Amino acid sequence: MECIWRVLMLWSQRQAKKRPTLWASLLLTVALCPTVSAIQPDAEYLVREKQFGKQWVTEDKQVQEKLAALEEKTGKKPNIVFILADDIGYTELGSYGGGKIRGFSTPNLDRMADEGMRLLSFYSEPSCTPTRAALMTGRHPVRIGMLGVLFPGTVGMGLAAEELTVAEALSEAGYSTAMFGKWHLGGEEEYYPTNQGFDEATWSEGNPPWWGFAPDVKRSDNAGYVNMGAFVWAPGPEGFPYDTEGIMRGKKGEKPNMVAPFSLELYNTMDTDVADGVIDFIERSAKSEKPFFVYYAGKGNHFWGAHPDFMNQPAGTNNSAQMAEHDHNVGRVLDKLEELGIAENTVVVWMSDNGPMYAMHPHGGYSLLRGEKSDTWEGGVRVPAIIWWPGTIDEGQEPVDIVQVTDMFTTALSIAGVKGAIPDDRITDGVDQSALFLLGEGKSRRDYVFHYNKEKLEAVRKDQLKFRTKPEKPHHNCYNLHHDPAERYPDLSRYCLWAAPGFGKMIQDHQALIKKFPHRVQKAQQREFDFPFDPEK
Amino acid sequence: MECIWRVLMLWSQRQAKKRPTLWASLLLTVALCPTVSAIQPDAEYLVREKQFGKQWVTEDKQVQEKLAALEEKTGKKPNIVFILADDIGYTELGSYGGGKIRGFSTPNLDRMADEGMRLLSFYSEPSCTPTRAALMTGRHPVRIGMLGVLFPGTVGMGLAAEELTVAEALSEAGYSTAMFGKWHLGGEEEYYPTNQGFDEATWSEGNPPWWGFAPDVKRSDNAGYVNMGAFVWAPGPEGFPYDTEGIMRGKKGEKPNMVAPFSLELYNTMDTDVADGVIDFIERSAKSEKPFFVYYAGKGNHFWGAHPDFMNQPAGTNNSAQMAEHDHNVGRVLDKLEELGIAENTVVVWMSDNGPMYAMHPHGGYSLLRGEKSDTWEGGVRVPAIIWWPGTIDEGQEPVDIVQVTDMFTTALSIAGVKGAIPDDRITDGVDQSALFLLGEGKSRRDYVFHYNKEKLEAVRKDQLKFRTKPEKPHHNCYNLHHDPAERYPDLSRYCLWAAPGFGKMIQDHQALIKKFPHRVQKAQQREFDFPFDPEK
Repeated sequence: MECIWRVLMLWSQRQAKKRPTLWASLLLTVALCPTVSAIQPDAEYLVREKQFGKQWVTEDKQVQEKLAALEEKTGKKPNIVFILADDIGYTELGSYGGGKIRGFSTPNLDRMADEGMRLLSFYSEPSCTPTRAALMTGRHPVRIGMLGVLFPGTVGMGLAAEELTVAEALSEAGYSTAMFGKWHLGGEEEYYPTNQGFDEATWSEGNPPWWGFAPDVKRSDNAGYVNMGAFVWAPGPEGFPYDTEGIMRGKKGEKPNMVAPFSLELYNTMDTDVADGVIDFIERSAKSEKPFFVYYAGKGNHFWGAHPDFMNQPAGTNNSAQMAEHDHNVGRVLDKLEELGIAENTVVVWMSDNGPMYAMHPHGGYSLLRGEKSDTWEGGVRVPAIIWWPGTIDEGQEPVDIVQVTDMFTTALSIAGVKGAIPDDRITDGVDQSALFLLGEGKSRRDYVFHYNKEKLEAVRKDQLKFRTKPEKPHHNCYNLHHDPAERYPDLSRYCLWAAPGFGKMIQDHQALIKKFPHRVQKAQQREFDFPFDPEK
Repeated sequence: MECIWRVLMLWSQRQAKKRPTLWASLLLTVALCPTVSAIQPDAEYLVREKQFGKQWVTEDKQVQEKLAALEEKTGKKPNIVFILADDIGYTELGSYGGGKIRGFSTPNLDRMADEGMRLLSFYSEPSCTPTRAALMTGRHPVRIGMLGVLFPGTVGMGLAAEELTVAEALSEAGYSTAMFGKWHLGGEEEYYPTNQGFDEATWSEGNPPWWGFAPDVKRSDNAGYVNMGAFVWAPGPEGFPYDTEGIMRGKKGEKPNMVAPFSLELYNTMDTDVADGVIDFIERSAKSEKPFFVYYAGKGNHFWGAHPDFMNQPAGTNNSAQMAEHDHNVGRVLDKLEELGIAENTVVVWMSDNGPMYAMHPHGGYSLLRGEKSDTWEGGVRVPAIIWWPGTIDEGQEPVDIVQVTDMFTTALSIAGVKGAIPDDRITDGVDQSALFLLGEGKSRRDYVFHYNKEKLEAVRKDQLKFRTKPEKPHHNCYNLHHDPAERYPDLSRYCLWAAPGFGKMIQDHQALIKKFPHRVQKAQQREFDFPFDPEK
């Protein structure tokens, strides 16, 4: 219905210009409707659909043929692995110009990129919880009321049951689904991953410094360059503000258990433990007739603690140890997929959740781009992302196509053949990038991104240009990101003065659609907990 | 003699500590003196020689064996190609995290890096003439009185005849030598490349905007986004301040001719014309029994004009067209070497002369690092550099070892077997990096760089740390370049306070040696010329 409505809209707009394209439009309806999904996209997507709809139909056919051939060969839908790394800046990996110059190396992630597709213009949301919400739902977090980082003890905010998650849709499509790591989408029971479509999960609510506060930690202890004396300012284990109180493990439809209380030791090895869980799940699932979906939410690269095996990096920082550890763990996952002979039928998406956190410098990552986690400068939201699907996609690809984290939701569903499950009563920001994945550079279905920070639309990218809605200085509205990827030289005269009306229209249409499909509103509050504040302790 | 003196010094120092190592020292003398050259290095090199001298002897032996085997196989010393690109920032090439995200691509330079060695910590001097002087002589430009960019009409400054150039030394060693492109080491006859060791040369004095001032250029013409009306402020062709007045061509011992007057058209195709010359020379030389050395000094990536074939880049800037053109031309040189079957016996060194020039933004290049051409922040002096020697060195190498442009002089002479030609009556800053080239990562003979800007020592790098002698704010002296490659967060407490005495000693010893081997002083002046200033014209 949505499709027919859109074609009719197209027709009526053309009629207004007195062009008799009724028959052409109806013909287009017949051609497009079976393949163009019933998703309600954002307004700018419709503009592009008008321009490229015909071409997309052809591409979708090629994509479907490729996927059908693969399914015929392997007897399964493709397995899907999402690896979400934490706070890794755009220029951190060797293959993005970092690595050794930062005092560590990333041979496994570099190999992953060499064997697959290194996305050069991939955007996350500005921080942790928002990116996770976007990845799970294909919707900008502002639309679902998940505006910022969920701190321990926050209640009344989480991933609403009414939202369709990638795990729910893939479950319905016959996938085994699992989640390991940092959930960070709500600590109350209704938000548990096992209530959000995952057959099984082992997770932590978040990724907090409070983990350091274990009864046996001494004031004089040092953990990753942080003196534990600081913890007298933190709530103690009795007043721990977490709902879950530790690492949770459970299955869909069952009550999960707390399998380990939070502790510093646990946190040190968390990324490796999470990878162990992922690998175990992959081993079990490979034997099944069902395809699988697994979500590996890695340890934060911003707080102290790393696996002792990786501490000895040239940079001598926690971040460098964590980078080396995570790189190693990603390599283990890829190796396992190859060892099991299922790599050709498994698409692995690796990405970071946002830019680095300089409040932790030098232990919190880095980006040569301007900005950081929690802002919408490129350094905050432009992150490394790699697609690996050896044998199915070409190696050594480096598309500069714009992709946003929400797209991973829609693309996963498209690859699994269940894009039709996405409801059309709400806006889905994620666009289907299966053509980019399977056909290569130049096939991204977006050349735009709306950059929200909490409830504010701070910037819009279209093609090379990035328009800031509220510049910090007058007339510093706009940057050409090809000329100036680090956003140092606002460029009003050559581009933005002329592009401003275009941006104005984009934003207007975007906002008009919000009126039609209003945001979900959540009212968070901090729940009561004992706070054993005692600086003399 | 120098060697024996140094070993004796070493011995006397140990004696002072009452350690009876006379015999060991004498033994060391016997072991080291035949291989450690009689170059007078900087003081910090001697510190490292003390630490690693023994290991270096072993490595040098391996290097000599490799070179001997290659000479036996090919019947020649290795050919040497220096390609000096102009104003290309550290992060501009695809393989350094740039390329497509900057709106162009560099497939040939990326291939060159993939097939050889991408140097991650290569340092130039801060600007054009100084880097060229350093490359030709292996000495920091401050030592030879070539402090800054030579502007047209400067007299009394140039590459002094008393300096040994790489071309002179290689000529003596039996190489055919040639130079094509931007010389920029003096416009008076004594400074001509044909008087500096090159058998043949086709060159321009510099790379100036004045080239646009040709009699047929109209005020309303646009050349690469620059309105020619601006040229009323420039001296006209009659009063042209160049000594050479155009493109010069000549042979050693003969008087060169001006083969083309400077013009905008000529400038547009200059990089391609220069590459044509280089390729022609390579073709001719490959037939000869002599090995060859050719110096390809590419067109500036900072002023207008590019070959019409390359104008249509996504970024739509002159810089992007020039990058694409230069990349293409480097590819042509590599292809020619392969086609002639001499790649295995030809080492090609590609490097940039300094960081980008933002005064030309967006047409003057870019670096994600802090700073720009003419300063000693990383963006000014850390530049991309690639070593290509397929079949002789391993592919895919990415050493983070520190290398400085002066090292290319010494290394070329070492590879040609004539390091002994370097006089010991002056300090040679360039260290022999043939072990790094031929044995790989970790073999650089320096972990330090002295960063001069004109006559001022502005910064010193040692290992991960960079110490600024005159910080712009108090206590902003020092940066850890692994933690902070863009030099945003001065880090006094963790490192620099403790490292400061070490830096102090390094600088003291460095300066003591200048007293022993004083700088060459040149007094430049602007020669008289007609300046047809007429803004009403």
